Amino acid sequence: MVMTAALSTEEFTTALRAHSDRYWHRHPLHLRLHRGELSRQELRQWIANRWYYQKCLPQKDAAIVANCPDSEVRRRWVRRVLYQDGADDRHGGHAQWLDLAEAAGLSRSEVLDERHVLPGVRFATDAYVTFARTRPWTEAVASSLTELFSPDLMRERLAALRAHYPWVAAAGHAYFAERPAAATCDARHALELVLAHCTTRERQQAALAALAFKCEVLWSILDALEHAGRAR
Amino acid sequence: MVMTAALSTEEFTTALRAHSDRYWHRHPLHLRLHRGELSRQELRQWIANRWYYQKCLPQKDAAIVANCPDSEVRRRWVRRVLYQDGADDRHGGHAQWLDLAEAAGLSRSEVLDERHVLPGVRFATDAYVTFARTRPWTEAVASSLTELFSPDLMRERLAALRAHYPWVAAAGHAYFAERPAAATCDARHALELVLAHCTTRERQQAALAALAFKCEVLWSILDALEHAGRAR
Repeated sequence: MVMTAALSTEEFTTALRAHSDRYWHRHPLHLRLHRGELSRQELRQWIANRWYYQKCLPQKDAAIVANCPDSEVRRRWVRRVLYQDGADDRHGGHAQWLDLAEAAGLSRSEVLDERHVLPGVRFATDAYVTFARTRPWTEAVASSLTELFSPDLMRERLAALRAHYPWVAAAGHAYFAERPAAATCDARHALELVLAHCTTRERQQAALAALAFKCEVLWSILDALEHAGRAR
Repeated sequence: MVMTAALSTEEFTTALRAHSDRYWHRHPLHLRLHRGELSRQELRQWIANRWYYQKCLPQKDAAIVANCPDSEVRRRWVRRVLYQDGADDRHGGHAQWLDLAEAAGLSRSEVLDERHVLPGVRFATDAYVTFARTRPWTEAVASSLTELFSPDLMRERLAALRAHYPWVAAAGHAYFAERPAAATCDARHALELVLAHCTTRERQQAALAALAFKCEVLWSILDALEHAGRAR
């Protein structure tokens, strides 16, 4: 058996960050979104489908908590559940996403009943939740590291919404205004955990594979939307 | 196919409460504990083993959150995770249980490394966590309804500790002093959820079976301790 030495912290961090190449900021749909090229119908379709991903996040994060034997990690990670669910139905990430939907002209009910959600979006998102439920918690944490790359993308998106989609009321901007700071903080914590717990080459490879998998999940969500757009 | 009508709310509540017959307050080990008949060694053995059950509770509760698609239920249920984990290592249910262990003369390390935990205690507890991970969340909630029966038992236990085990320092009493009020509140919420969501006979039967299963888990924990006591 060939024993491969663990990467140094710096090498491992670099390898994780290199996965930004696979992140969905380069997906054609995101590029068109940010250039202001989506129709109202396309933007609404994106918002209604992304809702399915958003709504599954607390269950994904609770699965990580459920699999984690470390109380310090749990009490920190559980904040992610609370961030999206909020203190009540008017606050939190979910409420902000539904505000975005309404600001873009979608009714709350047509978002909540998921009539617009495409099978490919559902399958990719469900695969992510299943991953968090069934894989070691450290791998699920590693899969969340796409948040290393998300703050810049969300800031760009907010600027694009303001510049190119003025028909989306500003009341719908809160998610992208607030999330980058929280994501930066969350990503820092997740990176600390991955660096602290994945100290063998085997675990490091599993963490890198988890992050690659997550990039595939995200990319696949946009592929489903892109294909549906072409098929219409 | 024979369609069996759902029980009325009153009938269903009565059927759930009737499971108190199977609750572990009648287990010989608890009877001896409360009569003051446990030796120091036996009480310590009970505390160190029960720790394994306690430590798994946040993971069990997070599994329920992970399986629950209702944000209102999640944001309420997640409080159970926080109750046991506490704000830090010095607060919360876990800290209180470890205080009890120390007050009874166990070192923190010999509790945390689980050297005293019996296989039967581990298997029964793990079965409960697996149940919460793999069964519908409403059944897992129903399995928590042993808390309908626990406040009286915990008050009795606190009185027994004071009366019969004065060598256990009072600093170890906090868990049983505080938990009954919280358990009463938690049980009321869980009962509301079960009554609201289990509205077909099939779901009501599943909820009753879940509660029966949970009673078996608890009973089995004490059986393992009782048998170990006899075997020594």
